Amino acid sequence: MNPTIELLKSHRSIRKFADRPVSRELLEELIRAGQAAATSSHVQACSVIHVKNPEKRAAIADYAGGQGYVASCGAFLVFCADMKRPTEAAERTGARVVRGMTEHLLVATVDTALMAQNVAVAAESEGLGICYIGGIRNDPRAVSDLLELPQHVYPVFGMCLGYPAHDPDVKPRLPVEAILKEDRYTDDREWVEAFDDTMHAYYRSRKGGPKDSTWSQNLTPLFDTKLRPHMREFLIERGFEMK
Amino acid sequence: MNPTIELLKSHRSIRKFADRPVSRELLEELIRAGQAAATSSHVQACSVIHVKNPEKRAAIADYAGGQGYVASCGAFLVFCADMKRPTEAAERTGARVVRGMTEHLLVATVDTALMAQNVAVAAESEGLGICYIGGIRNDPRAVSDLLELPQHVYPVFGMCLGYPAHDPDVKPRLPVEAILKEDRYTDDREWVEAFDDTMHAYYRSRKGGPKDSTWSQNLTPLFDTKLRPHMREFLIERGFEMK
Repeated sequence: MNPTIELLKSHRSIRKFADRPVSRELLEELIRAGQAAATSSHVQACSVIHVKNPEKRAAIADYAGGQGYVASCGAFLVFCADMKRPTEAAERTGARVVRGMTEHLLVATVDTALMAQNVAVAAESEGLGICYIGGIRNDPRAVSDLLELPQHVYPVFGMCLGYPAHDPDVKPRLPVEAILKEDRYTDDREWVEAFDDTMHAYYRSRKGGPKDSTWSQNLTPLFDTKLRPHMREFLIERGFEMK
Repeated sequence: MNPTIELLKSHRSIRKFADRPVSRELLEELIRAGQAAATSSHVQACSVIHVKNPEKRAAIADYAGGQGYVASCGAFLVFCADMKRPTEAAERTGARVVRGMTEHLLVATVDTALMAQNVAVAAESEGLGICYIGGIRNDPRAVSDLLELPQHVYPVFGMCLGYPAHDPDVKPRLPVEAILKEDRYTDDREWVEAFDDTMHAYYRSRKGGPKDSTWSQNLTPLFDTKLRPHMREFLIERGFEMK
């Protein structure tokens, strides 16, 4: 196992940060590493808002469901899927532009995620810790207003970065046999059941305090209600019409 | 710049591969590195089909628009957004499950992309080259049938992996000033115009043969027609109803 793979496999979300900012120079280096990720047809459909203003940070921490580390981390970034830049660039060359296809939503969302993951890896390679904040989609309209996001741009997730002030466990993952299938999709229930035992044992002994649950039980809140039911209308309002 | 950031910044798509397979052992290591990426609420909503069968590889190369390296690379993976595994796991614990929310599509697509990017970085750290194949979305129904993908699973993109047999240039990216904004979204047109000059110069002198184009001009084919107009109906058919 080479050092890069070792780094990747040591990831865990950091939610307590030292009171130490991330320098502008380092941040730019991380973004450049992010930009180097693959991008569909070179479209580069991601913009990143570096939220420095303390009131804005506090507001987003609140929108995200009271995640205080959004306000206290060394740097907070909002990764936005950005179809404004490329469509307007194409229009300026005289192209007639069709917007709002479902495929555009996928392209921009994937581009954004690939770039963000490179930023995460680069940050961790420099000794920073990170935490993705999907909770900004709890109130994406408020986040968009706060950051003055224009049409054809939507906030996909946030990312806290900073110097770690705790050392949480690496959380187990499903057995590779569940994930990696050969030539066709095959059932993975037996691996899920084995993993439920793994997670049950992990939750009982983890540093963060014991809990009595399995992976399968833990998933219930994701699926037993309409998860973020505003997302459809929000995306349509912002010009991602899913046509 | 540390070696990991250097690695990230040296990425370019590889489309010519040595006739040398990727071992099962290495592949599993790459997938484990992929799995270590962040996952929304630990849902782990990605499955990977390792396509070994030569007829299936040839068929996918064809669906993807005649990308022969899908058939000739050392290993070909199809990354699938998988909401079947977690929703069925939750159901087995007695949860009543709501499926088909737009948010579920976003969660599963982002989870898949984060994992894939870790696989890409891990592969490159081992001296492999990679190329994402978004072209599998040209005919996602045919790909799904071929790989026997069940409901609530959709193929997001493919990935070619293998030992590089060419050494293409690293393609320029937009200036960091266009991507990284402070506290609010701001106009980036001046940076796009500067980048058009950069790309014009790049295309004239690149190893792959000269062409007379800018970034903005190159985007036209993405937007001047309805890009992959089947995606909406396809996703709905597969249980990603975008409710």
